[in-house]
Amino acid sequence: MARTVEVTDVILRDAHQSLMATRMALEDMVPACEALDRAGYWSLECWGGATFDSCIRFLNEDPWERLRTFKRLLPNTRTQMLLRGQNILGYRHYEDGVVERFVDKAAENGMDVFRVFDALNDTRNLETALRAVKATGKHAQGTVCYTISPVHTIEKFVDMAARLQDMGVDSVCIKDMAALLKPQPAYDLVKGIKEKCGEGLLVHVHVHATTGVTLVSLMKAIEAGADIVDTSVSALSLGPGHNPTESLVEMLEGTGYDTRLDLAAVYEARDHFATIRPRYREFLTDFQGVETEIFKSQIPGGMLSNMESQLKQQNQGHRMREVLEEVPRVRQAAGFPPLVTPSSQIVGTQAVFNVMMGEYKVMTGEFSDLMLGYYGATDADKDPAVVAKAKESAKKEPITGRPADLLAPEWDKLTAEAKALEGHDGSDEDTLTYAMFPQVAPKFFRERADGPLNLGRDPVAPRAPVDPSHPGYLAQEIEYEVTVNGQKAKVTVSPA
Amino acid sequence: MARTVEVTDVILRDAHQSLMATRMALEDMVPACEALDRAGYWSLECWGGATFDSCIRFLNEDPWERLRTFKRLLPNTRTQMLLRGQNILGYRHYEDGVVERFVDKAAENGMDVFRVFDALNDTRNLETALRAVKATGKHAQGTVCYTISPVHTIEKFVDMAARLQDMGVDSVCIKDMAALLKPQPAYDLVKGIKEKCGEGLLVHVHVHATTGVTLVSLMKAIEAGADIVDTSVSALSLGPGHNPTESLVEMLEGTGYDTRLDLAAVYEARDHFATIRPRYREFLTDFQGVETEIFKSQIPGGMLSNMESQLKQQNQGHRMREVLEEVPRVRQAAGFPPLVTPSSQIVGTQAVFNVMMGEYKVMTGEFSDLMLGYYGATDADKDPAVVAKAKESAKKEPITGRPADLLAPEWDKLTAEAKALEGHDGSDEDTLTYAMFPQVAPKFFRERADGPLNLGRDPVAPRAPVDPSHPGYLAQEIEYEVTVNGQKAKVTVSPA
Repeated sequence: MARTVEVTDVILRDAHQSLMATRMALEDMVPACEALDRAGYWSLECWGGATFDSCIRFLNEDPWERLRTFKRLLPNTRTQMLLRGQNILGYRHYEDGVVERFVDKAAENGMDVFRVFDALNDTRNLETALRAVKATGKHAQGTVCYTISPVHTIEKFVDMAARLQDMGVDSVCIKDMAALLKPQPAYDLVKGIKEKCGEGLLVHVHVHATTGVTLVSLMKAIEAGADIVDTSVSALSLGPGHNPTESLVEMLEGTGYDTRLDLAAVYEARDHFATIRPRYREFLTDFQGVETEIFKSQIPGGMLSNMESQLKQQNQGHRMREVLEEVPRVRQAAGFPPLVTPSSQIVGTQAVFNVMMGEYKVMTGEFSDLMLGYYGATDADKDPAVVAKAKESAKKEPITGRPADLLAPEWDKLTAEAKALEGHDGSDEDTLTYAMFPQVAPKFFRERADGPLNLGRDPVAPRAPVDPSHPGYLAQEIEYEVTVNGQKAKVTVSPA
Repeated sequence: MARTVEVTDVILRDAHQSLMATRMALEDMVPACEALDRAGYWSLECWGGATFDSCIRFLNEDPWERLRTFKRLLPNTRTQMLLRGQNILGYRHYEDGVVERFVDKAAENGMDVFRVFDALNDTRNLETALRAVKATGKHAQGTVCYTISPVHTIEKFVDMAARLQDMGVDSVCIKDMAALLKPQPAYDLVKGIKEKCGEGLLVHVHVHATTGVTLVSLMKAIEAGADIVDTSVSALSLGPGHNPTESLVEMLEGTGYDTRLDLAAVYEARDHFATIRPRYREFLTDFQGVETEIFKSQIPGGMLSNMESQLKQQNQGHRMREVLEEVPRVRQAAGFPPLVTPSSQIVGTQAVFNVMMGEYKVMTGEFSDLMLGYYGATDADKDPAVVAKAKESAKKEPITGRPADLLAPEWDKLTAEAKALEGHDGSDEDTLTYAMFPQVAPKFFRERADGPLNLGRDPVAPRAPVDPSHPGYLAQEIEYEVTVNGQKAKVTVSPA
């Protein structure tokens, strides 16, 4: 008798976030839902900060309506979301009342599983969200963000899982956003959690594929007792995305582990997304191979491209190598935070500043806040000299308490501001949308009635004169309407 | 103390054969050789049937000179080749004297490790080649071609390995050309061979990456005792190619297994091939994801595209599904041969014929020969009714002996024919080139003096008016020299 390994598919959220800049329109996902719902997944991840943001910023689509649609189309499968703890889906700490309202409304609109994480692994930043999820009766999953540093050990991660268990979570997720989790640590970590917390605590493993080793890590995690693993339908997988669901199913044949997935249904979904994928080619990541130097630098791909564009804006593109060497120093000064939104951006930007203007000569407000404890506590001590500079720069004192304890109730104020906006529909959902993305929500409320956009474009049958790989070459003759000296003419251009 | 796992890199042969139609010019490999030689590989695969063919067919490059160059540039690492047993590097059975001469000359020109396989796993077709390699004192590797069928079991593959051991091989290779080897069978197969043949018999595992599961299979093979595994420098890996070398190295960290590779040297080679890769973009495979339906159909990707083009030539492209259903029936009738050159082409073409003209109404000469034993014996019995039709069609009797036993000595005849060709340099090497590729060699001998071609092209800075993904769209203004009504004019066309 094989032990069943459950599967969460991230095709409706993290897959297109990682591979096509979160641009997939709801209408391009809807046709696959029936097959996905029939396939036998433990859950389908379909909502999170970036998809919410993209909905209102790019797609003129109401993210709450997206959630209700998924719930309706997936009657047999849990819906799942990624929640940034006290940051909810935004970039700052919210007061507890807002966190609670968000969780209530998400549950009410159809969310079943809440994966709650904090970028610094400070469990105090998870408390309110997890308690709120428990209060709704939905599944509360606490998250351990996996990273590598001189201070991060298997034992410390296991201890964090135990603390999450004490907080009453229904399951623990090991979240490996940068594909740093190698097979042996994957085994040791799952084994350690199961031994310390008991076989009964569900362990869910989330890995990206970037470094090419993590399907092996999933195998080892399963051998160590992992209950649920994250994969993505193959049509949107690999590169900075995830391991293909079909490969996971096939990998387990004969091993004593088995998914309960109906592969034929997965193939139906794959066929759909394989058709959709080329419609978004302008958003698709170029990177489809593996990147293993992350193990050395610990700098995730998204962070790299951010820093590169910051340097280029200042005409300092040639100084990338210096920045890459600066990042580990900044990370060490900041107490070795995992590099994930928003800590990756904060550390990366400060590294760019240090290279361009001298070490900590100029400090971003966010980096000062990180150094002074306003994002929470880090696993290692911070560099006291840099903390002193942060105090000076930000004119603030360090804190050691839970950051949200400093915040006054803000729901009434947010409601008043939101309701004053043109197009606000009077609902708490709209107020939450505004609370999360105050810069973007006003335009979305105004234009919502125009209906959702689909940024995908059907491939055009080639009628161009140019072989794409050799610009300038005319493959066949072509007619242009051309203006010469102010006179319009139909002109035929032929290959030379 | 970690056990050392040795690594063969296929970047100089199978990687570009699988990913860029075998087109890489020697001069694009030479700059990486110093780093590859320093990295600490057990061997570097650098020669085989397709590279030999491509050298004389497309690159006007002497394959023997290629071998001598590699030998000179890789003083610290074994060179390795893939040899098709009695077929040498060609598509027919050669008389023993030709096989022996080829092996002698390959060894003399610098080949260290000979991986010898037969498409039907008929060990009689390996005998002469393996004996010849042993006589030169070089490394003789016997190969088990892995496949899936109702008759293929771990036990039978292990028995074949034991027969190869009895034949005196220095090592056994498990060759998984279609990425069908899943983790558990990989473990069972290596374990079975080690148990039956002793820990002392070196086991070398070759897998492709197509299905996405085979890095896990390498992990399991290593756990079962595999001594050497094949990977490829990441810049040319994945898709129908191989697992990335760097990922293998990282995967093993902390596991109790360790490669002795210098990753810094591998990265140097990667940086080189990452620069070279885009020069060959017109030959690069489109397919970079995973294809898991091969597990059901057992039809490798290359075979699929062959059959598709055959159907399309007959305006029967819409009958692909029927052909896909016919392939397993034809394979069963033929005694379940592994599908690898040339059996994959023979079975595929007959399946196309069956669909277009009725079952076995027309039989190709090669399929008749396969049915009548002229390629050797298969692991399962053949369909007697189809054998009878083959006899009738080919007007030949079935044989059960070793096919090469029917062949008369042919070296003198081949030499006479070859030496009569313009440009033959009088060497046995040239005669062997002619023997292997009699259609292609004459033109190569005539034109060899013109020197090697490099089919790679440096990317051109975009000066095109057309966004490649949206043909017809002008991204910037462009100047054309245009003839209107017979009059030449310089015309500027701007985006609409």
